[in-house]
Amino acid sequence: MKKHTATNEQSGITLDFTHVMGKPEDGFLTTRDINAMEETIQKIHNVLLEKKANNTLGFYDLYTRNTMIDEVETMAKKLAPTCENLVVLGIGGSALGTIAVHRALNPWHYNLLPENSRKGPRLFIMDNIDPETLGSLLEFLNPEKTIINVISKSGSTAETMSQFLIARKWLMDNLGQTFNRHIVITTDPESGFLRKIAQMENFATLPIPADIGGRFSVFTPVGLFPLAMTGIDIRKLLAGCKAAAQTCTLPEVWKNPAYLSGIIHYIFEKKQGLKLWVMMPYSDSLKEISDWYTQLSAESLGKRFDIHGKEVFCGPTPIKALGATDQHSQLQLYMEGPRDKIFTFIEVETFRNNDITIPKAYEDIEGVEYLGGHTLGELLNTELRATRLALRTNKRPSITFRFPEINAWTIGQLIYILEVQVVFLGHLYQINPLDQPGVELGKQLTYGLMGRSGFEKSLKDVKQAESSALKQYVKTTLQ
Amino acid sequence: MKKHTATNEQSGITLDFTHVMGKPEDGFLTTRDINAMEETIQKIHNVLLEKKANNTLGFYDLYTRNTMIDEVETMAKKLAPTCENLVVLGIGGSALGTIAVHRALNPWHYNLLPENSRKGPRLFIMDNIDPETLGSLLEFLNPEKTIINVISKSGSTAETMSQFLIARKWLMDNLGQTFNRHIVITTDPESGFLRKIAQMENFATLPIPADIGGRFSVFTPVGLFPLAMTGIDIRKLLAGCKAAAQTCTLPEVWKNPAYLSGIIHYIFEKKQGLKLWVMMPYSDSLKEISDWYTQLSAESLGKRFDIHGKEVFCGPTPIKALGATDQHSQLQLYMEGPRDKIFTFIEVETFRNNDITIPKAYEDIEGVEYLGGHTLGELLNTELRATRLALRTNKRPSITFRFPEINAWTIGQLIYILEVQVVFLGHLYQINPLDQPGVELGKQLTYGLMGRSGFEKSLKDVKQAESSALKQYVKTTLQ
Repeated sequence: MKKHTATNEQSGITLDFTHVMGKPEDGFLTTRDINAMEETIQKIHNVLLEKKANNTLGFYDLYTRNTMIDEVETMAKKLAPTCENLVVLGIGGSALGTIAVHRALNPWHYNLLPENSRKGPRLFIMDNIDPETLGSLLEFLNPEKTIINVISKSGSTAETMSQFLIARKWLMDNLGQTFNRHIVITTDPESGFLRKIAQMENFATLPIPADIGGRFSVFTPVGLFPLAMTGIDIRKLLAGCKAAAQTCTLPEVWKNPAYLSGIIHYIFEKKQGLKLWVMMPYSDSLKEISDWYTQLSAESLGKRFDIHGKEVFCGPTPIKALGATDQHSQLQLYMEGPRDKIFTFIEVETFRNNDITIPKAYEDIEGVEYLGGHTLGELLNTELRATRLALRTNKRPSITFRFPEINAWTIGQLIYILEVQVVFLGHLYQINPLDQPGVELGKQLTYGLMGRSGFEKSLKDVKQAESSALKQYVKTTLQ
Repeated sequence: MKKHTATNEQSGITLDFTHVMGKPEDGFLTTRDINAMEETIQKIHNVLLEKKANNTLGFYDLYTRNTMIDEVETMAKKLAPTCENLVVLGIGGSALGTIAVHRALNPWHYNLLPENSRKGPRLFIMDNIDPETLGSLLEFLNPEKTIINVISKSGSTAETMSQFLIARKWLMDNLGQTFNRHIVITTDPESGFLRKIAQMENFATLPIPADIGGRFSVFTPVGLFPLAMTGIDIRKLLAGCKAAAQTCTLPEVWKNPAYLSGIIHYIFEKKQGLKLWVMMPYSDSLKEISDWYTQLSAESLGKRFDIHGKEVFCGPTPIKALGATDQHSQLQLYMEGPRDKIFTFIEVETFRNNDITIPKAYEDIEGVEYLGGHTLGELLNTELRATRLALRTNKRPSITFRFPEINAWTIGQLIYILEVQVVFLGHLYQINPLDQPGVELGKQLTYGLMGRSGFEKSLKDVKQAESSALKQYVKTTLQ
């Protein structure tokens, strides 16, 4: 009997795929379905190993880059004691990984804790350009006690550069000449506007390795620096990556959790049209892992390509959910809506506070009495077990990543597995998982509207498209 | 020329539907497509008015229930000055509306503000049963300065009752006999375990009107009490509902934003298979409106039914996004992934802090220079305009709800419009938008596993389903 799990390492995280296996007539898989993909998997495996060796997929070996890790640790050790607040200015890949790991590993109400109950400054990750939010933050913070970490690989991200210009002036107005000691720039080691500015202004800098794209950058200084500032053990995170790397580079699909999860998703999507991929951790502190994974999946796999001159639009849509909360929100749809979803649950076996027992009370009220004596974690995991089984009963498949406990080592593992999974999927779909050409048009139209020189044509395009949208509509109403 | 907007009231919110109208060959709509639904719309309109008159759809007239509103205000006025913390224990409809309105109307970092900068206690909405979260919250709070608001209409929600038992013991252990002054129960006015318990323990109570289901309950004491505690003007929220009610009960689809938005979604789903409905506010403080709407839509519209004895699974899948942030996450998929989505943007014209100007700097660096002199809000709204147009270029339709400003009045309007829209859609799909039968199975399996008396059969069902899942799998591997 084959075990239903692909364990990553003893007491590491486990992939449980019991609830995708079953009778074909119920829409479940057999081992034969997966074994039939063997040749394709091996081909992709060889391509991935080759790209890994050529440093085209740099995220594979970030845990080996000791100079980079030392540099982050040294800077965090120097700066953390000097500040009350760390503000990260970054968007997309420059924010989502940091948010996910911060929320996973730091206390739930971290910024509310008194200073002596935290291992570092408060952390504010500003990944949007809403003036109300940024305005109220700057009003609230003491600039003398604040470090601003500006993150953009290209140094030309409009959102981040705008935030930077505002925060820079705020520091200058309040601190005068010494303002530059309050800024740390994380950017490309050599090129880009932000690198140039950092040199001009004498800002402290950290490098984003040239071979790493934004959505794969959480274990570069992009994520490692702010995380280290809050006291997270970044070496333990990277040790988790190293442990995951051992299994995620194995050729055998049954032993490689990234390939196994990837091929399961691929088969359900290709053969049964399950295009909606729900990620549903049963843990508050893993909620933002879904946000991070949404970017990783959507940007990597949502791609247009041509087959014999015909445009094809491809890519699964990631969906964010949280257990048990979403049992009272999205579950109705998952159970009775279209059979177009596959679920990735994340389960935690042991809670970091050793759980809470529900006290016995009201023992004559049968609808309440049964709860007493169980723990809250037991209820949470029982609900997951029941929900997973109820979904199976309705022929909806799921996999589960099971954490023995949430810690830096297991979080490092999960992130690494999912990164390999997405790159593997990109090769299954025969698209480039590392680019994002679809966001260019919107950027260019924005440049045009904002009056950036060289983008006069984009402005013309906007005007024309808008007026034709209106004209078309007028024509329609006149029919 | 017909105007492209269905305005709700002067300086109220506006529905802009320009970007669903266009050439049929590009997949856009003509007015003829909408007018062709006239008869169906009128039939449903009459049914809705009838149900409204019969109090089957109580949410329509919550703004008229003065006794309820007075009761909430009186209690909030009495309790707010006595506490530092208000903890809401509730899940799904007992939490999502409150979170959405709290985040929309209170300052972004509300709980971090010093007491004299807030109009009420800090607000902690606990809508999950993760023991790590609840444990760390109770460790952090001073029970003497804390009010616990327990919300469950039935009084038998397992998650909320478990939280309640834990919080009750925490108060008793710390405060002794007077603990009951720290609990407010919001539940059915007459029936249910929680009503019974409140009477036994002499807890303060607030009613959830019998004719209102959980996901339509934000403007009952469920939402109104915690919101009033934080100083939000609940009468202004309800005035917004009243204003929206005037247009959302009009028979003319072109004047009724709820019907118009509903019919647009319906036509795209039915005729073009756009089953993924993305809600994407360009405003941090409206982010959680998408969470609230996700429940409203998923539970109301995700339904199984029978046609001539054949099971049909129906329902659009709501997707949460945030602008501009998700331009760096989900947009690639929206642009180049399958054409299976319609977008609801939310735009804010005037920001509450009068916006922030991006300072001019680095005028010789062309990729930065163009930003100076614009405001941050201008950049945000320019990005929305560019993204909407880029999506249109790729034949992806969108509507926009436009806020002149975010305030209690306009938020009341939006919520009301979306509630009517969902109920209208339920009738278009000919399903019951008010029930949620699909979540029952999971609940029963949970009861069985937790040893609730009367659910012994459910426990047997779990064991059998699990062992057959395993057996099936073993059989498969042995092939």
